Amino acid sequence: MNELTKRLLSGIIYVAVLISCSLYSQFTFILLFFILMLFSLYEFLKLINLQSVFAYVLAILMYAITALYHFPETTKLDINKIIDVLIVLLFISAFIPFIFYLFSKTKQLNTALGQLFLSIIYIAVPFSMMIHIPFLNPEFEYIGKTFVGILSLIWINDTFAYLVGKNFGKTKLIERISPNKTIEGFIGGFAFTLLASYFLSKYFQELSHIQWLVIAIIVSVFGVLGDLIESKFKREAKVKDSGNFIPGHGGFLDRLDSVIFATPFIFIYLLLI
Amino acid sequence: MNELTKRLLSGIIYVAVLISCSLYSQFTFILLFFILMLFSLYEFLKLINLQSVFAYVLAILMYAITALYHFPETTKLDINKIIDVLIVLLFISAFIPFIFYLFSKTKQLNTALGQLFLSIIYIAVPFSMMIHIPFLNPEFEYIGKTFVGILSLIWINDTFAYLVGKNFGKTKLIERISPNKTIEGFIGGFAFTLLASYFLSKYFQELSHIQWLVIAIIVSVFGVLGDLIESKFKREAKVKDSGNFIPGHGGFLDRLDSVIFATPFIFIYLLLI
Repeated sequence: MNELTKRLLSGIIYVAVLISCSLYSQFTFILLFFILMLFSLYEFLKLINLQSVFAYVLAILMYAITALYHFPETTKLDINKIIDVLIVLLFISAFIPFIFYLFSKTKQLNTALGQLFLSIIYIAVPFSMMIHIPFLNPEFEYIGKTFVGILSLIWINDTFAYLVGKNFGKTKLIERISPNKTIEGFIGGFAFTLLASYFLSKYFQELSHIQWLVIAIIVSVFGVLGDLIESKFKREAKVKDSGNFIPGHGGFLDRLDSVIFATPFIFIYLLLI
Repeated sequence: MNELTKRLLSGIIYVAVLISCSLYSQFTFILLFFILMLFSLYEFLKLINLQSVFAYVLAILMYAITALYHFPETTKLDINKIIDVLIVLLFISAFIPFIFYLFSKTKQLNTALGQLFLSIIYIAVPFSMMIHIPFLNPEFEYIGKTFVGILSLIWINDTFAYLVGKNFGKTKLIERISPNKTIEGFIGGFAFTLLASYFLSKYFQELSHIQWLVIAIIVSVFGVLGDLIESKFKREAKVKDSGNFIPGHGGFLDRLDSVIFATPFIFIYLLLI
């Protein structure tokens, strides 16, 4: 199997898994993004060269707290009580690393703790925020289609930025961080994403024309910024890909960098309106 | 004025200001600790060599959000609405630095962001948690005495750990981080703090004997750890004091290191019971 076929095939599987898990039910959606968060965290910790079980503990607690809000209340368990306990555990787990790294000799205290908290804000917080997006509607019910629409816009933006940049790209965006990105590519991605949002709003009527337009703008601007941010992390670590889980596509973090940075802003926008 | 008189005088003023602001009203208490948080943050940022206006923005937003919960609801303003807006601003302010440091050339992206988030968890979170402690009673009313009791235990622990250590100290606690701390000093501070908590519980009856005893144990153990953590930050920065605001006592961070690390655990303990 040649490189292009491998790349195409794994790309199709990746997209198919994301779409079907999002559409099937809130449980498959929350479970899938839990797994994607853990893989992304694993790759990011490797990138910044931090071995820390605390990062996983904090990320899992944070994700569990926000995910539990969407569990049906008909069960025999008192969900609110469990959430309260997890919040307390989250606070305690945030301060225990100060004690642990006090006695550790591997890294400077301020470097180790700083990287730990960065990994939580950069990976765990966006994942914990984005899983609320499908619930942000007047009835708070799960609408997986909304999230599939957002993912589509992100993929359209990435694809057309790449295609337009490759064929018409002349002016570098920020050469120092990402030498392949051009202003022409960015404009191409932006234009096609806006256009796509217009068609999307005809089929995904849970959100209005204007709302899909704003989401398209957020996707284009913050998606590219998310891509550049991950590129800078990789550049500092002197690696090309964050991992090699997806054949021909690098790691999960490489695939999700735009999603990670754009979705918190989409969440805030949908929360405010 | 010689060094000892200066040290004694400024120490008395410092203690007097803390006690009177805590006892006077919830507003003087919240205002005083707001100022102390800003000074501590300023000193900590200097210590880790980070110039960042985002650290102040994030700290002020976080403190304001938790402080506003205690504002009377009789005012014409919709406090809950203001809190919601501030929470949104807090989230946005947490992600803007990623974009800012992307274009900045002064530090590595992961170092700058890591130090920024560390300064929030180490300084802003504890201050935002500790101001709730006087409200943690069945009626949620402000009882400044509780906080004065906790401060007294912290000062008793510090003083007796110093005195016992100076006179009977032989075995170093962790020489590598803090060469002046001894196990004898720690035990001395611990014993006198436990004893003090017994007398305290007779006069500060808002909390029970057992509750004051547990607080005394938290103060001794986590107070010393807080002191060691700040020592390690200073050692890495190769400075002796975090500042020189309080004549003869170093900076605010030097004075508050035990308070910063012990009070989140006291808050969690009082919240759980």
